[in-house]
Amino acid sequence: MTPDGGGGAQQPGGGGGPSLTAADVARLVGGALAAGDDGARVVRRVAPLHRAGPDDLTFLASAKYLDAFADTRAGVALVAPALADTPGAPNALRIVVDKPHEALLAVLPRLYAQAPREPGVHPTARIGRGARLGDDVTIDAYAVIGDNATVGDRAWIGAHCELGDGVHVGHDTRLYPGVTLYPGTSLGARVAVHSGARLGSDGFGYVFGEGAHRKIPHVGRCVIEDDVEIGANTTIDRGSIDDTIVGAGTKIDNLVHVGHNCRIGKHCLLMAQVGLAGSTTIEDGAIVAGQVGTAGHMTIGRGARIAAQSGVFADVPPGATYGGYPARPHKESLRAYAAMHKLAGMMKRIERLLERSEESGP
Amino acid sequence: MTPDGGGGAQQPGGGGGPSLTAADVARLVGGALAAGDDGARVVRRVAPLHRAGPDDLTFLASAKYLDAFADTRAGVALVAPALADTPGAPNALRIVVDKPHEALLAVLPRLYAQAPREPGVHPTARIGRGARLGDDVTIDAYAVIGDNATVGDRAWIGAHCELGDGVHVGHDTRLYPGVTLYPGTSLGARVAVHSGARLGSDGFGYVFGEGAHRKIPHVGRCVIEDDVEIGANTTIDRGSIDDTIVGAGTKIDNLVHVGHNCRIGKHCLLMAQVGLAGSTTIEDGAIVAGQVGTAGHMTIGRGARIAAQSGVFADVPPGATYGGYPARPHKESLRAYAAMHKLAGMMKRIERLLERSEESGP
Amino acid sequence: MTPDGGGGAQQPGGGGGPSLTAADVARLVGGALAAGDDGARVVRRVAPLHRAGPDDLTFLASAKYLDAFADTRAGVALVAPALADTPGAPNALRIVVDKPHEALLAVLPRLYAQAPREPGVHPTARIGRGARLGDDVTIDAYAVIGDNATVGDRAWIGAHCELGDGVHVGHDTRLYPGVTLYPGTSLGARVAVHSGARLGSDGFGYVFGEGAHRKIPHVGRCVIEDDVEIGANTTIDRGSIDDTIVGAGTKIDNLVHVGHNCRIGKHCLLMAQVGLAGSTTIEDGAIVAGQVGTAGHMTIGRGARIAAQSGVFADVPPGATYGGYPARPHKESLRAYAAMHKLAGMMKRIERLLERSEESGP
Repeated sequence: MTPDGGGGAQQPGGGGGPSLTAADVARLVGGALAAGDDGARVVRRVAPLHRAGPDDLTFLASAKYLDAFADTRAGVALVAPALADTPGAPNALRIVVDKPHEALLAVLPRLYAQAPREPGVHPTARIGRGARLGDDVTIDAYAVIGDNATVGDRAWIGAHCELGDGVHVGHDTRLYPGVTLYPGTSLGARVAVHSGARLGSDGFGYVFGEGAHRKIPHVGRCVIEDDVEIGANTTIDRGSIDDTIVGAGTKIDNLVHVGHNCRIGKHCLLMAQVGLAGSTTIEDGAIVAGQVGTAGHMTIGRGARIAAQSGVFADVPPGATYGGYPARPHKESLRAYAAMHKLAGMMKRIERLLERSEESGP
Repeated sequence: MTPDGGGGAQQPGGGGGPSLTAADVARLVGGALAAGDDGARVVRRVAPLHRAGPDDLTFLASAKYLDAFADTRAGVALVAPALADTPGAPNALRIVVDKPHEALLAVLPRLYAQAPREPGVHPTARIGRGARLGDDVTIDAYAVIGDNATVGDRAWIGAHCELGDGVHVGHDTRLYPGVTLYPGTSLGARVAVHSGARLGSDGFGYVFGEGAHRKIPHVGRCVIEDDVEIGANTTIDRGSIDDTIVGAGTKIDNLVHVGHNCRIGKHCLLMAQVGLAGSTTIEDGAIVAGQVGTAGHMTIGRGARIAAQSGVFADVPPGATYGGYPARPHKESLRAYAAMHKLAGMMKRIERLLERSEESGP
Repeated sequence: MTPDGGGGAQQPGGGGGPSLTAADVARLVGGALAAGDDGARVVRRVAPLHRAGPDDLTFLASAKYLDAFADTRAGVALVAPALADTPGAPNALRIVVDKPHEALLAVLPRLYAQAPREPGVHPTARIGRGARLGDDVTIDAYAVIGDNATVGDRAWIGAHCELGDGVHVGHDTRLYPGVTLYPGTSLGARVAVHSGARLGSDGFGYVFGEGAHRKIPHVGRCVIEDDVEIGANTTIDRGSIDDTIVGAGTKIDNLVHVGHNCRIGKHCLLMAQVGLAGSTTIEDGAIVAGQVGTAGHMTIGRGARIAAQSGVFADVPPGATYGGYPARPHKESLRAYAAMHKLAGMMKRIERLLERSEESGP
């Protein structure tokens, strides 16, 4: 924050873009400048230790990066308290702050402006019959909005997006380019959907009969609540009879598959390439790491955590940490895999012992 | 079916949309109304137990849902024979039927009309030189049809689809928005391809030489036979020399990868996120569950089943059920993983015993 | 090569397309014709043994295909030295060559012309303010090029691609239809990006606070060096502060996920559905097989190989081959899984022995 009280992002500065003084940074992150320093030094960007220059703010959060810290040319550095007196960063003014990496959350938006959004409907966008567009929306080139769809105020529909008939998009929601929302999909407010995500596609449901897999018509919806973020090329199927629901504040990474009728709670995290079979329930606040798969109709309890690549074939209790295949309490699972690896070196001895003892009889 | 013999889907009904009487439903599913009931009650939608209202048809297929059944407000309920006399569903007229969930197959198309298709070529669609379009096709906005491509009668090409040169799409086939068919790809009749699927992309084939991975040109095709359904964002590579083939009636879920030269038989199921390395053969009727991976050049025999997340590194015999990593007969695999988990708790005892017995000598 | 010295691909030939004589083929692959044969026979296509006809070149690289070789109708066959005298291929002129499959690399481009590229900017393509297009570029229908983007000479941007503001695409690079490059993404020369790939999307980074996951703004770039190929529907996130980098000559298959801040070296191979968590380092020449996952901040050393489906939770030394979950040296891992499977059949005996020995006391 500069003396006139304006935000850094609006300051032209010598380099043309926004800038902050070290004192601004210290105030924003709630950190401490060295005693006597006036904090007048100016930064214009954030950069990692090895790439930072005199105009850059950098950070040291872990002793793992002391080598890079020794040589960094950064002008200002956020430093964790435990590392406050570490030698290095010869030209940097230091700001001591509890969690340097998290502290950047307060600084980044000041130095990097959001992508500019120009309200308006591009002349090449196709708007269906009966569609209602809110105030101040942006609809980019070649987007297709279906009949009777509704788009909330200030929503931003990227190029080449396709919104099926009757889709609802809440206010301040952003679809990046090339997203497909199947008919009947509903998105809340402040949702972000990354490029190539497909929401509301038919679930994988067939009944075998008369020599063929007969498709079960899917008439449920795909409902995404407020403040959800969905990664690139992720797929979320609509429900068969009931709806598929992703709860408010949940964040989903790239290439995730969510099957029909899944119920995902609020503030969950689903990391890349997770696959949820149909009718999986994930309760509030659960965290599912990358490449985990779940069998159908399982429940992962409130606040539970599932380690990467696990296969969940049974319910997971609230608060538990599970891992492995099939998923068990994580510590047990780690012990089991460790035992398996140790076992390989003991097999001959075990076999010899069994033979000998069985020969000698009971 | 209403007294005039028309299908339910054509009836306006009081609510404006299609409707069925309970007697219609009983006839459609081959179920039994309670003795003496005239079945005149009308339903307009299908809904799960907890959401159903007086105009809704619901179903109870398993004792797992008895709680929801107790309170449901549904007007009509399909009930499995074993649960026919279960207390609950106070306002529902019951229809007893063997498999309530499957029975819905006969009812859903009557209550939910298919998405309306308006034949015609959208003025923004680009049609290549020499392309031939069948009778009554639908080509949506911004679709691009390559030179010499052929599109069969009544086919529906969604918005933003791209059909490369020489592609063939059979009659009554539907491409949802944003599908890419690389040049030379061929699709049969009544195929459905969901949004974002990429068919006929180059396989992953390189020869290392002169310090670099040199690409093997791919000149085989990607051939999809009749009645196949392909999920959202799935990728199926073209063949290198030979073709990649997906047999008639096979259903493929979302985010599946099929490598070059794979041969998938008829009436197979491939669930979400399965990955088939190059030249995998899947024989007719096999079922491959989610996140399974196969090594190259393996064969999964006719009617075999592979459990979720398995790693297939050897051929699987016809009719077998395999699971685990590396995949083995499923029962053996379950026993092995169970033994591994049990082992962890026995390791100290085993080690003590080995030491003691080896000290005491033979 | 025909007598006039022109390349085969330019020869009209009797069948209309390019052709080669057997003598041409022998010269191209450095193989040997049978003594006394003039090599005048003409081939027009390459085909597998079971489909080849008199105008086709086929190949026999392994004894696994002797059955098909016995009956093939091919006109010319490349045969490995060890199989040179195998009975079969009654009508084929044989050319003996060390690695018949690799030898095709020299022949295929002569018989199969590259897809024709027509330079020019399609009238429906949208070109942003300040964008610079090189000489002889191709921009296909409905592509959207952002403000201040640069596209190198002879680059080919497929239909429906979206290049964000400030994107750089190097010369001779090809984007297949429907690729998204987020703002700030940079691609080198001779890169190929297949349909539906998303490069430069935001990484999955949040800080939990005040009851919600707060998004960490991502200001790093996604940098793809020269000669990289990226498969269909793959996602590569931009860096958070630092960049995500894919080194020159690396090849990435379909549906791969590369998290933020990953550093992938030169000439690596990443096979289908691999998932790299944030800040993974893959050193030069490493090969990561299908469906492998890595935990964050791990390093896979130079030239290392990771077996399919492995879970990498610790650094892998240069040159090592690792496998399994959690990944260990591959041979150890194979032994461990084998021991686990063997263990299942021994559990009762082990338990009996433990009980008996513990009863009898030390």
